[in-house]
Amino acid sequence: MIDRRINHKDLRELAAALLSASGTDKSEVGTIADILVWADLVGRSTQGIWRLKELLPRLRAGFIQSPCSPEFMQKSDGIVLVDGHNGFGRYVGHVAMSRAIELARRCGMGLVVVRNSSHFGAGAYYVHLAAQAGMIGLAFTNTPRRVAAYGGLRPIFGTNPVAFGAPLRDGRSVLIDFSTSMIAGSVLRKGLESNEPIREGVAVDEHGKPVTNPEEGQIFAMLPFGGAKGYCLSLLVEILTGVMTGSLMSFQIPCMLEKTQPVTRIGHVFLVIDIATLLPLQEYHQRMAMLVTAVKDSPLQPGVSEVLIPGEARWRSYLKQIKEGILLDSKTIESLESLAAERKIATPW
Amino acid sequence: MIDRRINHKDLRELAAALLSASGTDKSEVGTIADILVWADLVGRSTQGIWRLKELLPRLRAGFIQSPCSPEFMQKSDGIVLVDGHNGFGRYVGHVAMSRAIELARRCGMGLVVVRNSSHFGAGAYYVHLAAQAGMIGLAFTNTPRRVAAYGGLRPIFGTNPVAFGAPLRDGRSVLIDFSTSMIAGSVLRKGLESNEPIREGVAVDEHGKPVTNPEEGQIFAMLPFGGAKGYCLSLLVEILTGVMTGSLMSFQIPCMLEKTQPVTRIGHVFLVIDIATLLPLQEYHQRMAMLVTAVKDSPLQPGVSEVLIPGEARWRSYLKQIKEGILLDSKTIESLESLAAERKIATPW
Repeated sequence: MIDRRINHKDLRELAAALLSASGTDKSEVGTIADILVWADLVGRSTQGIWRLKELLPRLRAGFIQSPCSPEFMQKSDGIVLVDGHNGFGRYVGHVAMSRAIELARRCGMGLVVVRNSSHFGAGAYYVHLAAQAGMIGLAFTNTPRRVAAYGGLRPIFGTNPVAFGAPLRDGRSVLIDFSTSMIAGSVLRKGLESNEPIREGVAVDEHGKPVTNPEEGQIFAMLPFGGAKGYCLSLLVEILTGVMTGSLMSFQIPCMLEKTQPVTRIGHVFLVIDIATLLPLQEYHQRMAMLVTAVKDSPLQPGVSEVLIPGEARWRSYLKQIKEGILLDSKTIESLESLAAERKIATPW
Repeated sequence: MIDRRINHKDLRELAAALLSASGTDKSEVGTIADILVWADLVGRSTQGIWRLKELLPRLRAGFIQSPCSPEFMQKSDGIVLVDGHNGFGRYVGHVAMSRAIELARRCGMGLVVVRNSSHFGAGAYYVHLAAQAGMIGLAFTNTPRRVAAYGGLRPIFGTNPVAFGAPLRDGRSVLIDFSTSMIAGSVLRKGLESNEPIREGVAVDEHGKPVTNPEEGQIFAMLPFGGAKGYCLSLLVEILTGVMTGSLMSFQIPCMLEKTQPVTRIGHVFLVIDIATLLPLQEYHQRMAMLVTAVKDSPLQPGVSEVLIPGEARWRSYLKQIKEGILLDSKTIESLESLAAERKIATPW
């Protein structure tokens, strides 16, 4: 088995066929396939079609519901609560962020909080939707527990990521999207699959000793990034997405990989600010360009070749892979082939 | 000179007298004195009355205006833009956060963005105001440039702190308040005054080499905390407070210590969500208590005596110092005595 480059349209078609054949409602298939392929295009394959091998069995087992028919409850002019009915997090996230953008267009800002959803994938996708609409977007989600509190030795928090997007004049956007753990859960998992060593400080065993060899069984808890500050951010995300939404909190969410576990009931929060409410978009873009220039023109630390704006690497990957095809590693290809064979679907390679 | 404990009311009275004698408008004196003393009470002396030695000369020089008569521009039902007219950041911050709370009470959430202010001190103070009102509060500010972008070697960002507050049933609140640099600018400065060594990774010289000896002149740039993630957060704060407010950006803000420099024109952003719009406050408190218990009951990493909820140390300090008086170090006492003598004001000791 070797790595391959697959045209993004072909990959999207394959993802859609696999989702359909597994019982995903046709109203949801296109959105979910788009979001999976977008993650691959921007180079975040851990949130891309690699995930189908986990999503499809969970759908079949009834741990993800489709159609989920999200329920919208208007709480005030600018605030909506969504019950995701345990649907695909990517679908629920998409409709929730789209609603937040509508609210912001009407009210200057929009807040959509979601309960009873499942993992939404790459937060960057949702905040980019806001940025494309000329708005600033924030997205938060909790996830199953993996991360200890600062000083603690039991997984309490999910990797609880923070995502932020802001438009750039050329149609790209500033895309911030990071887990509040030392590394993302999916990056750890994909690394374990490939027997890659784990950096010290990423995870500890049940005695609090660093785990650096790639055996998942030894990992008892992951650690927050940046010490106490990362812990604070993780708690912030938990209060917003776990406490405030009325959904489950990370420490109550069943692991996505445990096939015997019930629905995840994850919470998300989407917040959008319409920039034009505060200053003309033209002026925003001038100011944003000044900031980007100041950062990019910075002299470099020894050994560094470039200062990157968050999102810049994603957009480079996007342009390259739109043109040259999406690079899939052999493990992902193997898993797609097996999923496709089970469902009697032809792969595009 | 030795350290002393001073009754908080006496210290508040001294702060008010010093502010008045230096020309602070009487409509602003009480608020500013309260906020300074609150920072001392919660153990954040770097944002406490130690700051008067910098604030009073800046007021006299006209770099801080008083009265500043903040101007409120309603941008939508829930959004207000405030021009702080280069007043005391603590006063402007207080009226802005108070307005955000009012907006949230009416609309479910409130956003107040501030241009043309000055340093607002401890963000925790403002988010605690929101928490006391049964709301979740966020506060952001930029500050004069000190911090390099990740991989860069020129100060671009301020220490750009993030603050978040959420109510607890007993009247305290979760208080998150941290700089996105490795350490807060004021902590670095106070450390330099006391010739304390600097941890590696906190600051670099103009060649990118770590500075660890306590000589301010050698520090060319501070570094973001947590590597690329801290840089992302710093940029996020800059986009909100620098770009979106139409105020100065950190890299344009004059250093507060340069007496020859003009007004700072700092930007702040305050965001408040009224919890009761989403779920009954009773239910919120039950859920919050579950989360706090899960965190506090965590087994401990070797060598750790307790897992703290953010803000917990502040409230312990608050209760202790309300009762026993505020501990002032000898340098602060000296500086207060000198400020008081100049203005012919008696100190309470």
